[in-house]
Amino acid sequence: MTDLKQRILAAVGPDLAAIEQALADHLDPHYELVRQVAGHLLFAGGKRLRPLLMLLCGRLCGHDTQDAIASAIIFEYLHAATLIHDDVVDGADLRRGRTVAHKVWDPPTAVLTGDFLLARALTLAARTQMPAVIATIAGITEFMAQGEINQLARKGDVTLSEADYMDVIRCKTAVLFQGACRVGGLLARAPQPIIEALADYGLHLGMAFQMADDLLDYTQQTDTLGKRAGADLLEGKLTLPVIHALRHATPAEQTWMKSLIAAQAFTPDQLQQFIAILQSCDAIAYTRDRAADHMARAKTILDGFPPGPARTVLADIVDYAWARAN
Amino acid sequence: MTDLKQRILAAVGPDLAAIEQALADHLDPHYELVRQVAGHLLFAGGKRLRPLLMLLCGRLCGHDTQDAIASAIIFEYLHAATLIHDDVVDGADLRRGRTVAHKVWDPPTAVLTGDFLLARALTLAARTQMPAVIATIAGITEFMAQGEINQLARKGDVTLSEADYMDVIRCKTAVLFQGACRVGGLLARAPQPIIEALADYGLHLGMAFQMADDLLDYTQQTDTLGKRAGADLLEGKLTLPVIHALRHATPAEQTWMKSLIAAQAFTPDQLQQFIAILQSCDAIAYTRDRAADHMARAKTILDGFPPGPARTVLADIVDYAWARAN
Repeated sequence: MTDLKQRILAAVGPDLAAIEQALADHLDPHYELVRQVAGHLLFAGGKRLRPLLMLLCGRLCGHDTQDAIASAIIFEYLHAATLIHDDVVDGADLRRGRTVAHKVWDPPTAVLTGDFLLARALTLAARTQMPAVIATIAGITEFMAQGEINQLARKGDVTLSEADYMDVIRCKTAVLFQGACRVGGLLARAPQPIIEALADYGLHLGMAFQMADDLLDYTQQTDTLGKRAGADLLEGKLTLPVIHALRHATPAEQTWMKSLIAAQAFTPDQLQQFIAILQSCDAIAYTRDRAADHMARAKTILDGFPPGPARTVLADIVDYAWARAN
Repeated sequence: MTDLKQRILAAVGPDLAAIEQALADHLDPHYELVRQVAGHLLFAGGKRLRPLLMLLCGRLCGHDTQDAIASAIIFEYLHAATLIHDDVVDGADLRRGRTVAHKVWDPPTAVLTGDFLLARALTLAARTQMPAVIATIAGITEFMAQGEINQLARKGDVTLSEADYMDVIRCKTAVLFQGACRVGGLLARAPQPIIEALADYGLHLGMAFQMADDLLDYTQQTDTLGKRAGADLLEGKLTLPVIHALRHATPAEQTWMKSLIAAQAFTPDQLQQFIAILQSCDAIAYTRDRAADHMARAKTILDGFPPGPARTVLADIVDYAWARAN
């Protein structure tokens, strides 16, 4: 994991520096307070994975992406906007190891700052003067909001199917990865089949990434995670390990799991017991396998592109998405 | 007032019908719940003033606006998105005489539905394939969010100046009117000076409209208003009448007003006494005069256009903005 991360960081170091600079340069607030609230999350050390994907996909199509940094950060602004809103929605305390914006300020200020970042992303999209880019950004935003609404509506709903879950994570996470990769191809003026291949790579990477993220909730401790372990369970968010266990654990275990989900509260011991059930009925392994399916599809798509530094990093990023959950 | 309203309605009847139909047709949600939550506010009888302004400004430039309905409703989606978020931010109970979305459902669902409507507006903007239109829509959204953030940050701040107030209402209200009128001109492919004139008309109309709206809080009862009378005062929103009175009432009255603002609570008698002070130091009349200045500027701009049905309705709308506050 560490070697992989180091290799990726070495390959994209200059890109990351350019992204950090652009994130600050393009924020352009009318009021100083807006810079503070937006900056609280934006400059708390995100991985910048989404803007990187856009740049790398552009480079994979032979695009000199130096002028594309202002477009790449669209995806970080969008991501930050949805994180801020999601934290309000979930009543979260911590994000990237920091107290969330809606607790440092208040929920209304956090909501409006999310709106500003959303709008800022769209202003930068408009500057590309490419309708397909703009439509992609707007479409991503629609899907992300709806994915979150649906997830919220089905909070604690133990009838949630695997297909429902896949639809939610596609909307709330994978469409953003997909869109970043698509826009990389669009800005490179790549042929349509190439753009679709890049979008598919992003979609499968995003699906794997979210599944890995959902696994972390049951495989990591609070201090490594930067947010509270077991948070999804506490919020009634049923992710794939739980959905699988609710069908494959023993009837007694299923009943106990349902009561814990309904209670929306648990002791550390109960969380450990919950995790032990996920392991004993292979729910963790099952989720890893589904993530691995998507990773394999992402890699197969990459194999269709000529080898080179961009392709190597894009393949490493797939492995990184996997390594996070292990 | 009633005659004026009837005359406007008679002139724009077919437009209003087309707008209502398009609002339903273009919502296009991925999940049914999204239609319900978004529709709760969207179909509670709004005036559709912003889409109308876009259509009328287009027609003033000789544009056959039949194909522009899908663009006109962008401004109603944007307006609805900000109303939903503002109601969450303000903790409002009523809007258009209905219980607000965040009380029928919950604040998180309302926040995310606002996000969806914002994104939907931008998807429709992208469909125009006109970067200037898209940049206008994104810019409006940035300013509106920031106007609200600033208003919130200065809640109960008795040092708020008249210039600060003008900046807030420009950001939170007038830029949307301005943008609707600008896009009417852009879609009509009008020459740049004409587009700027239309945008200025919208800006001044929007300023007058918000001042009239702020006056209503002190001149109307809850049942006519569709929201609670004195709500701005209760939320610590200092509008022009209050800003004026805090400088022109007697020292004793100013002290009493400040204590009421700080308390963020009042009895019906105290609200009546507050209003009596606004009247005795001419704060109501002063606000009307400032609104009248903007109305006069809006009308002067219209005088530069050739006479015709569109110009007549746009002038009537200026009078309507004024008549609301009387």
